[in-house]
Amino acid sequence: MNSKKILLDHGSGGISSRNLIEEIFLPRLDNPILAQFEDSAVLQSGSTRLAFTTDGYVVDPLFFPGGDIGKLAVHGTINDLVMQGAQPIGLSLSLILEEGFALADLERIADSIGRASRESGVPVVTGDTKVVPRGKADKIFITTSGIGIVPDGLLLGSGLARAGDAVLLSGTIGDHGVTIMAARAGLAIQSSIQSDTAPLHRLVAAMLQQAPGSIRCLRDPTRGGAATVLSEIAVKSKVQIEINEKDLPIRPGVESACEMLGLDPLYLANEGKCIVIVDPAQAEALLKVMRKTEEGHDAAIVGHVAAAAPEPNVSNGRVVMNTAIGGARIIGPLSGEPLPRIC
Amino acid sequence: MNSKKILLDHGSGGISSRNLIEEIFLPRLDNPILAQFEDSAVLQSGSTRLAFTTDGYVVDPLFFPGGDIGKLAVHGTINDLVMQGAQPIGLSLSLILEEGFALADLERIADSIGRASRESGVPVVTGDTKVVPRGKADKIFITTSGIGIVPDGLLLGSGLARAGDAVLLSGTIGDHGVTIMAARAGLAIQSSIQSDTAPLHRLVAAMLQQAPGSIRCLRDPTRGGAATVLSEIAVKSKVQIEINEKDLPIRPGVESACEMLGLDPLYLANEGKCIVIVDPAQAEALLKVMRKTEEGHDAAIVGHVAAAAPEPNVSNGRVVMNTAIGGARIIGPLSGEPLPRIC
Repeated sequence: MNSKKILLDHGSGGISSRNLIEEIFLPRLDNPILAQFEDSAVLQSGSTRLAFTTDGYVVDPLFFPGGDIGKLAVHGTINDLVMQGAQPIGLSLSLILEEGFALADLERIADSIGRASRESGVPVVTGDTKVVPRGKADKIFITTSGIGIVPDGLLLGSGLARAGDAVLLSGTIGDHGVTIMAARAGLAIQSSIQSDTAPLHRLVAAMLQQAPGSIRCLRDPTRGGAATVLSEIAVKSKVQIEINEKDLPIRPGVESACEMLGLDPLYLANEGKCIVIVDPAQAEALLKVMRKTEEGHDAAIVGHVAAAAPEPNVSNGRVVMNTAIGGARIIGPLSGEPLPRIC
Repeated sequence: MNSKKILLDHGSGGISSRNLIEEIFLPRLDNPILAQFEDSAVLQSGSTRLAFTTDGYVVDPLFFPGGDIGKLAVHGTINDLVMQGAQPIGLSLSLILEEGFALADLERIADSIGRASRESGVPVVTGDTKVVPRGKADKIFITTSGIGIVPDGLLLGSGLARAGDAVLLSGTIGDHGVTIMAARAGLAIQSSIQSDTAPLHRLVAAMLQQAPGSIRCLRDPTRGGAATVLSEIAVKSKVQIEINEKDLPIRPGVESACEMLGLDPLYLANEGKCIVIVDPAQAEALLKVMRKTEEGHDAAIVGHVAAAAPEPNVSNGRVVMNTAIGGARIIGPLSGEPLPRIC
């Protein structure tokens, strides 16, 4: 009998989340698609490749600068599809409501879901609503799932990074994490700092048009942040990824808030950003295209995949950061849970 | 400003659930597929028709005679796909866990999900896990979504019932509802009574093979029970459905438990049953095929669609039950919430 219990850490998106899935679910739900750990599953259906994804949203507070739980749920699921190169075609919306939740708040969230769905051109086509007695849930939890079509011939994956590839970030990191943290703590931060929640289908469409065969991997660094996603790519591709601290796009307000709160922006959730691993010959051209879009305005080349394989004692790939002061630091995946209910 | 609040009733699957969706969500998420209110959405993707569905599970208790929350979630989503005639190809699994939830219980649920998935041949291909602090959720909530392929030429819908059609039930009603109610109340009921949770893909495949062009509509009477689903069909098809109380398959133990607890089996949730509206010329042959399957062993013809349209003052269709004692009673959709957290 296992007397252990679920900890907040198990929902961090970092090491404990990964361990929970690997130990409890993979052996029992054994199938090769689930085991790939990508943002979306890709299923073959006749000649069509379908992307399929799901995410639960439990963010606290429900409303925050730049967005709310509904907008986050729509964008998050669209982005998980887009990271596999898929064109999203429909979303589902499942609500768990606490008895006593204000209908006015539900209306505000429904407004926001409707707006996000219309603006991104992806309809909500099916849904479900459950209500639990007061005290058995916290106001509202939302689970969105999505399906999309993956274009013929396109293959993206966290295991496809190669020596020499360039590493790009589509914009500033840490905005969402700092916004939620500050909102929860009642901290007044610079009014310019808000959640970066945004759908990335336009950005990715522009990128795929520019460099269709050269992009190896797209990932959105949500829970666990850029550090965790880069670590996953390094491990799956068995490469060493080197990033340069001075090249990381971070808003000054986020940087100072992180210093004040003792947070590392590399581990904070982002909700409208992606990490791109691309053939170095295409990196500059791709960067230009990204910067022309609203979502990729602050894109930057932040590092590269090292030419040499990781040292013999680092069997599974790793991330090294060249620090601003001239040192080098190993960047592991998130350990612990700095911010429960970040999304 | 709307000062109203969410009531348990809003999650009943009956009138209030319907009103909540019609008033809050349909105007804001306006699209023709969502507005169809079927168990699954059907999306056209090239030459393929995809069925897509989602459901949240908040059942209390988590483990009950005949099943548990995990088995229920897998079967429920498979059945929602199957009701549109779709062949399920993949499920997603999104968990919201309460901090402190026993890992042993999570393992037991994961075992059950794995078993249900293998037995029905539908893999879990993608998932998500969130953890909320103790007291912010009740142990575990599960949202499953599913996708399936609808065979070419097949068209099923709640609005397709015609005058003269036969109405079939695939088996006994009320088993799941009574089981949960009794488990929650700590009542000892007959040990033969247990949840009917079961996947219906085999039953429906056999039915579609027998009567491919003759089945108008398949619906699984979960929350809200057979009464609510029959009412929805009558309203959408603008017909009068007549059912015969004496023909309804109900286990004696369920009947006596309902009498004791003051419940009406027509309004209780079922998790492994379907209502079938079919061309009367095919009804007997279909019944035979259904009874040969494990899931349809107790199938029965329980009524028919009246030849005449509803009376002029009943503009939108209705259900009438010929009672066992020789009277007639109008059967409306569920009003109120007899059993919160039934599924």
